[in-house]
Amino acid sequence: MYAITIPEPGGPEALQWAEVPDPVPGDGEVLVEVAASAVNRADLLQRQGFYNPPPGASPYPGLECSGRITALGPGVSGWAVGDEVCALLAGGGYAEQVAVPAGQLLPVPEGVDLVAAAALPEVVCTVWSNVFMVAHLRPGETLLVHGGASGIGTMAVQLAKAIGAKVAVTAGGKEKLERCAELGADILIDYREQDFVEEIKAATDGAGADVILDIMGAKYLDRNVNALAVNGRLAIIGLQGGVKGELNLNTLLGKRAAITATSLRARPLGEKAAIVAAVREHVWPLIGAGRIKPVVDRTLPMSEAAAAHRVLEESGHVGKVLLTR
Amino acid sequence: MYAITIPEPGGPEALQWAEVPDPVPGDGEVLVEVAASAVNRADLLQRQGFYNPPPGASPYPGLECSGRITALGPGVSGWAVGDEVCALLAGGGYAEQVAVPAGQLLPVPEGVDLVAAAALPEVVCTVWSNVFMVAHLRPGETLLVHGGASGIGTMAVQLAKAIGAKVAVTAGGKEKLERCAELGADILIDYREQDFVEEIKAATDGAGADVILDIMGAKYLDRNVNALAVNGRLAIIGLQGGVKGELNLNTLLGKRAAITATSLRARPLGEKAAIVAAVREHVWPLIGAGRIKPVVDRTLPMSEAAAAHRVLEESGHVGKVLLTR
Repeated sequence: MYAITIPEPGGPEALQWAEVPDPVPGDGEVLVEVAASAVNRADLLQRQGFYNPPPGASPYPGLECSGRITALGPGVSGWAVGDEVCALLAGGGYAEQVAVPAGQLLPVPEGVDLVAAAALPEVVCTVWSNVFMVAHLRPGETLLVHGGASGIGTMAVQLAKAIGAKVAVTAGGKEKLERCAELGADILIDYREQDFVEEIKAATDGAGADVILDIMGAKYLDRNVNALAVNGRLAIIGLQGGVKGELNLNTLLGKRAAITATSLRARPLGEKAAIVAAVREHVWPLIGAGRIKPVVDRTLPMSEAAAAHRVLEESGHVGKVLLTR
Repeated sequence: MYAITIPEPGGPEALQWAEVPDPVPGDGEVLVEVAASAVNRADLLQRQGFYNPPPGASPYPGLECSGRITALGPGVSGWAVGDEVCALLAGGGYAEQVAVPAGQLLPVPEGVDLVAAAALPEVVCTVWSNVFMVAHLRPGETLLVHGGASGIGTMAVQLAKAIGAKVAVTAGGKEKLERCAELGADILIDYREQDFVEEIKAATDGAGADVILDIMGAKYLDRNVNALAVNGRLAIIGLQGGVKGELNLNTLLGKRAAITATSLRARPLGEKAAIVAAVREHVWPLIGAGRIKPVVDRTLPMSEAAAAHRVLEESGHVGKVLLTR
């Protein structure tokens, strides 16, 4: 088969569409003929050599895909050859075929086409596991989403609104904020011109955000803690603004607040399967009912993955950038 | 009545045994004739002017007491004049009488005398709410307790052992560590001579601690994160080693770990009552069965509170220092 390979880490041009051995599904895995994959920030880091695949994972980038099952490995039940699926991957989505642990498969939701389904697994699993399973966002609470127009952001806004939370977003520029508003965001903060701590406090009678979904890490750490409400939970899922930050524990203690940092890719199979099962139970019906939609910025052929990476690097997109075969 | 007052913040000599107005139980409160109170580190901060009582709380120090109910305010049920109780307080324990919200009362446990019961409320509620309600320590997991010989520490060791966890402690010197071992601690770390990160890793096949109960704050922040296991939870309840520390979010994220910081005193009445109810349900039977005991270092007359504060400042004690009338 063909896949996007990374012979040498580097810029987008490091991505090479090349012939590689076909994957073979192992115990508990299925083989999926890929219809589409999607670009995640982690893929950019992997391309640069900063984020190696976990042990046993495919060396090719791609943390999610959609497609059709073409073979079942030993010990798989509940799935059949020909099923249309989407899947959370530890890697290997930028390819014609990929072997997937059955616990990471999801059916293509009603009303979503096969290609667009590739926009769902990573963002839905990331948002559900962090905002709901870890930070326990409740109806009536306020969620602050940094990068509200990103793939993760557009899903976080929709999911939080669907469960009855109030949603604030940060994004760069009016256009992105308007898209967030269309998805349901209540409080719009342009990080280029406004201070998000002041804005979230002004919009919540001084209380702050009950949950913050953060992708900036160190750069926002101190301000995020200041923006939290009493009993607030800061869920960090990205470190785009650096790794080491100063933490004021007195502020944290005064608020009885919590900070968590997680990544999805490194989790053991059992934890991924539990997240996927929870997503299928809680989120899939909302997608089937049309209350939550995949947000696709654009679709490019997989062989042009380099161009897709440039789109994410320029940060002009809203939602997901897909790669099709 | 008489109470310990703090006319001017300062050293232990700032504590003055003086005549003050009798407290009056308000709606939902009872009046307790105090048999004993106990010294907590927060009292030392309050004496120094660094930790003001929350709004509505008594201005006198003392976060817990034992005694007899002498009057019921309006709307109190389930308690009667003459009942022997101990209580979690927002302040006012260093006094002959104190008004207590009924939700913060506990019966004196079977097998514990009335004075010794004053050693229980603050430590049991702090340990239960942090280690179990927030950090969800489970049987078979490893808890690291900093300051294992303190009032909090001696209770954390006993409670964690009672639920089937493995317990590591840090303390200064052999004598204190031996007392921790008598209470059930499995892993003994002398912080004066050993590096607790190395020691906890060596004792857990490199895994680290699932939960850390910390009183040092900034000074230990980086090392605590390094000492955590995957999915570890750092529960900070004191800032004896400073307020601002550098946090490596990459380490936190790689472990999918959580940091929480809480204090008990500032919690609203409803949360305190929920903690006290959980303690009565889960911990009181263990005390009644003799599996967990109050650890009392010494007992001094309340009018000698200054001497009791000096004992805590010198850190030579093991367990609680009580003040009797």
